[in-house]
Amino acid sequence: MESQDHRYRLLIACPDRPGIIAAVSDLLYGRGANITSFDQYSEGPEGGYFFMRAEFEVPAGVEEEELAAALGALAPAYGMRWSLHAAARRQRLAVFVSREDHCLNELLWQTRRGEIAADVALVISNHPDAEEAVRAFGIPFYHIPVPPGGKARAEAQALELLEGRVDTIVLARYMQILSPDFVARFPARIINIHHSFLPAFVGPRPYQQAYERGVKLIGATAHYVTADLDAGPIIEQDVQRVDHRHRLADFRRIGRHIERMVLARAVAWHVEDRVLVHDNRTVVFPR
Amino acid sequence: MESQDHRYRLLIACPDRPGIIAAVSDLLYGRGANITSFDQYSEGPEGGYFFMRAEFEVPAGVEEEELAAALGALAPAYGMRWSLHAAARRQRLAVFVSREDHCLNELLWQTRRGEIAADVALVISNHPDAEEAVRAFGIPFYHIPVPPGGKARAEAQALELLEGRVDTIVLARYMQILSPDFVARFPARIINIHHSFLPAFVGPRPYQQAYERGVKLIGATAHYVTADLDAGPIIEQDVQRVDHRHRLADFRRIGRHIERMVLARAVAWHVEDRVLVHDNRTVVFPR
Amino acid sequence: MESQDHRYRLLIACPDRPGIIAAVSDLLYGRGANITSFDQYSEGPEGGYFFMRAEFEVPAGVEEEELAAALGALAPAYGMRWSLHAAARRQRLAVFVSREDHCLNELLWQTRRGEIAADVALVISNHPDAEEAVRAFGIPFYHIPVPPGGKARAEAQALELLEGRVDTIVLARYMQILSPDFVARFPARIINIHHSFLPAFVGPRPYQQAYERGVKLIGATAHYVTADLDAGPIIEQDVQRVDHRHRLADFRRIGRHIERMVLARAVAWHVEDRVLVHDNRTVVFPR
Amino acid sequence: MESQDHRYRLLIACPDRPGIIAAVSDLLYGRGANITSFDQYSEGPEGGYFFMRAEFEVPAGVEEEELAAALGALAPAYGMRWSLHAAARRQRLAVFVSREDHCLNELLWQTRRGEIAADVALVISNHPDAEEAVRAFGIPFYHIPVPPGGKARAEAQALELLEGRVDTIVLARYMQILSPDFVARFPARIINIHHSFLPAFVGPRPYQQAYERGVKLIGATAHYVTADLDAGPIIEQDVQRVDHRHRLADFRRIGRHIERMVLARAVAWHVEDRVLVHDNRTVVFPR
Repeated sequence: MESQDHRYRLLIACPDRPGIIAAVSDLLYGRGANITSFDQYSEGPEGGYFFMRAEFEVPAGVEEEELAAALGALAPAYGMRWSLHAAARRQRLAVFVSREDHCLNELLWQTRRGEIAADVALVISNHPDAEEAVRAFGIPFYHIPVPPGGKARAEAQALELLEGRVDTIVLARYMQILSPDFVARFPARIINIHHSFLPAFVGPRPYQQAYERGVKLIGATAHYVTADLDAGPIIEQDVQRVDHRHRLADFRRIGRHIERMVLARAVAWHVEDRVLVHDNRTVVFPR
Repeated sequence: MESQDHRYRLLIACPDRPGIIAAVSDLLYGRGANITSFDQYSEGPEGGYFFMRAEFEVPAGVEEEELAAALGALAPAYGMRWSLHAAARRQRLAVFVSREDHCLNELLWQTRRGEIAADVALVISNHPDAEEAVRAFGIPFYHIPVPPGGKARAEAQALELLEGRVDTIVLARYMQILSPDFVARFPARIINIHHSFLPAFVGPRPYQQAYERGVKLIGATAHYVTADLDAGPIIEQDVQRVDHRHRLADFRRIGRHIERMVLARAVAWHVEDRVLVHDNRTVVFPR
Repeated sequence: MESQDHRYRLLIACPDRPGIIAAVSDLLYGRGANITSFDQYSEGPEGGYFFMRAEFEVPAGVEEEELAAALGALAPAYGMRWSLHAAARRQRLAVFVSREDHCLNELLWQTRRGEIAADVALVISNHPDAEEAVRAFGIPFYHIPVPPGGKARAEAQALELLEGRVDTIVLARYMQILSPDFVARFPARIINIHHSFLPAFVGPRPYQQAYERGVKLIGATAHYVTADLDAGPIIEQDVQRVDHRHRLADFRRIGRHIERMVLARAVAWHVEDRVLVHDNRTVVFPR
Repeated sequence: MESQDHRYRLLIACPDRPGIIAAVSDLLYGRGANITSFDQYSEGPEGGYFFMRAEFEVPAGVEEEELAAALGALAPAYGMRWSLHAAARRQRLAVFVSREDHCLNELLWQTRRGEIAADVALVISNHPDAEEAVRAFGIPFYHIPVPPGGKARAEAQALELLEGRVDTIVLARYMQILSPDFVARFPARIINIHHSFLPAFVGPRPYQQAYERGVKLIGATAHYVTADLDAGPIIEQDVQRVDHRHRLADFRRIGRHIERMVLARAVAWHVEDRVLVHDNRTVVFPR
């Protein structure tokens, strides 16, 4: 494996207009950067938005601060939102889970194996069930119950644990609804898995709803959490075929597989800085 | 191709209980039938329903009336709904269409080629656009406009044309809402294609809705039409992946392909008597 | 969960002819059996084969031996191959693995969770790497190296461990070729995962081959092992889309996900007695 | 619809090195071009190749010849292969077909509807069957039989018809093998649909082979034709699930749907200049 010390990922979003790519390439090449991956997408030159992602390597001696300063100087002329990420700095995840542990296990396994380029820093659950499995991975587990009326207190406890330790929160079948205040602290940094093909079957018991409606495909949706429940920007979705032979328990079983795959893909893309949010939609630069 | 003269398809639905299969096999074997295909599904013996479909051939001399009489005599003991279809009697379809002709063309082409084992008896449209294409297939085309306030009259005209000439109506992107009265005349005999993955995006402009929601898959749904708009029993659904690069026009283009495939599959299954409706869900015995 | 004490699964394969279903139903109903699931498939009455699978429950007092005796008495008249499985008797698996542990982990996880209705009795590997992970599940791990020229000795060691302890062997990315003698001892009882969409890319390094050929989909195949390498009856296959952006390492990464899903499905079906082999093809009665 | 008069598509392939994007953007912006779509892909900066595709609009007064001259001047410094296509100049297709007409019909229908941005200039068949259907589209049909020993003569006849009238040849289930000489005249300009998931089942009767092998998915492959039969660069592939219930005729029926979709996609991409060939693989810039 090559060293990641001088590798960066750059994300940019701004109104499209001529010259953006040239300006950014000039900035990078002027510092001797080697662009190893470059993706962009434009909604079109008339009133549309432009999005880009680059991976590049700079020579020893070019510092992150200097790159950031140059980008900061370039940005206003183009109205750019931008972010620069050192590839060597892996994201730290907090995984929130309730009783169903299939998504949690997939995340533990994929992060350990390196399929997801991030570390699980801690796991928080309103149930004690997953403790042993989490500790077997050498990861701290915190049981924070959420009794009726105790949401504020539970969230305060969680916030204390998260403070400065975590980049992204993953709700891996966490069956509590987070308060708008909590959500507002982590914009586009909380990923949830909803166990339906959104926007079909919002709200509770989506498999029950799907079964009763007699659908022929069931799905799962990974999305960023916003104050508006189940309505945040969708990162990834997938479905699988069901038929009349499948009962509710089968829907749940089949759904578990879709859920863990969809969530794992969404998290893998997020931590590699492949996802940009614009206008409640996502631009995903594929792996 | 073997003769279809003595081939039948039998569909049965009834509360499950021991002995149904044995009773039906006895009835058929007692008349020298050769069962060439047999499918059944049970929801379970305790309070569940039982569904079956058989294809069989009887010796010359065994008449449809006699088979029907025997089934009619057996049915009450089991609370059976049943239907018997001579394979030689192809269904006659009426296709209703508005301006978008991709579903219509798929049906014309697949019925002519024999991919769908039915004949298009006539095409009705509230626009004149498709006339030439339909007549090129040697099929009668009727232009029945539906001006504001003219639905009742238009439906009356259509009913007159359909009377005795048609087994099933296919709404192949027909953008008018049929009246409950009209719908009630054709229970489980009107098939509609909805251009979304129902129940997501009910109502008008589903691709626009899907685009705005930022979904990562778009779909189409073929369903029987009931008085409750977009809520009838689903026969078939499918989806295709979209991403941020796809604009609304791309959603529509991709959607057209899903629509015609999904509708064609649903119609093919329906005319081969593979679909049973129970409890607003369908049992589909696959091809 | 209901008791499984009096539940059985029955598999039958025989030349098709009238009366099979009736004969088997009579046998079961005569003993008071409650058939909870019944699937059959016929290749057609003229020279074709008939396959069936039933799940049923018998009243207390009806013993397995008596059922088996009755089936044994019925079978010759129809030329039936049959097998009867008590649902309460879970299959015991031996998992063989080399260095790549993703399939092994999926099997450990799904068997523990009950997604696969079987127990992993032991794990055998020609490398020591997986020992810790396996022991964490409380499952015995045996390191049996296979040095050049040492295959016979290694297989003898394995056979001793397997003797009487195991129903099915799963090759979960086991990179050694088993001898024909070894394979012959476990007909339709060794399941392998091949990391390509067979019969494309038989032999070693299938992802390398696929990459060089420039395919647009890569796949994996779970099959029963026969003496003829990579040519045994296929149980399950699946694919995923790749494109020009994917390098060999991406093929491998994407492939790992397909492999573990395909292998897990094949094993789940096998241990629920859903797979029949006939003529180097499988009949799979779906879940 | 906006005018296409001043719209162009540019394709470039060259060894990757810093500055390519900047050089090309400079060239285009220097002429007042509005880049409406831009895609590129690099295999990596060390010894890898770089591929790009741009759609852009130039102001009235900027001529194609001038753009071409500028590109021609830039190319040698970078070792570029490049091509420039005026969007207003639709490709003209020759479709070759034998008896099976499903792919032909799909192409006729999609080109007429504008789903494929090209015109079918003529259809050539070694059978007369499709004549009427083709003429109904107002397209010339030529029946060129290929009797044993008559390939050279038939190809000479075809060449005469194609001369100067056609950009791309589509083999839409044309069951004759073209001579290496013929193929050599149209490098990356003949597209074939092979009715299997290549490289599985090369050669004749792929569905028969697939059926006998007992695969669980069947597929189709669209590829450029090279002298090496079934081994040319793959443009697109897709598969669909089959199971034990499907007989050979079902494989063929299901296959026909995959074939026409895969071929139509490949042709649509090709005529929009989205496909680059490098090293017997394709880079496809998606729609």
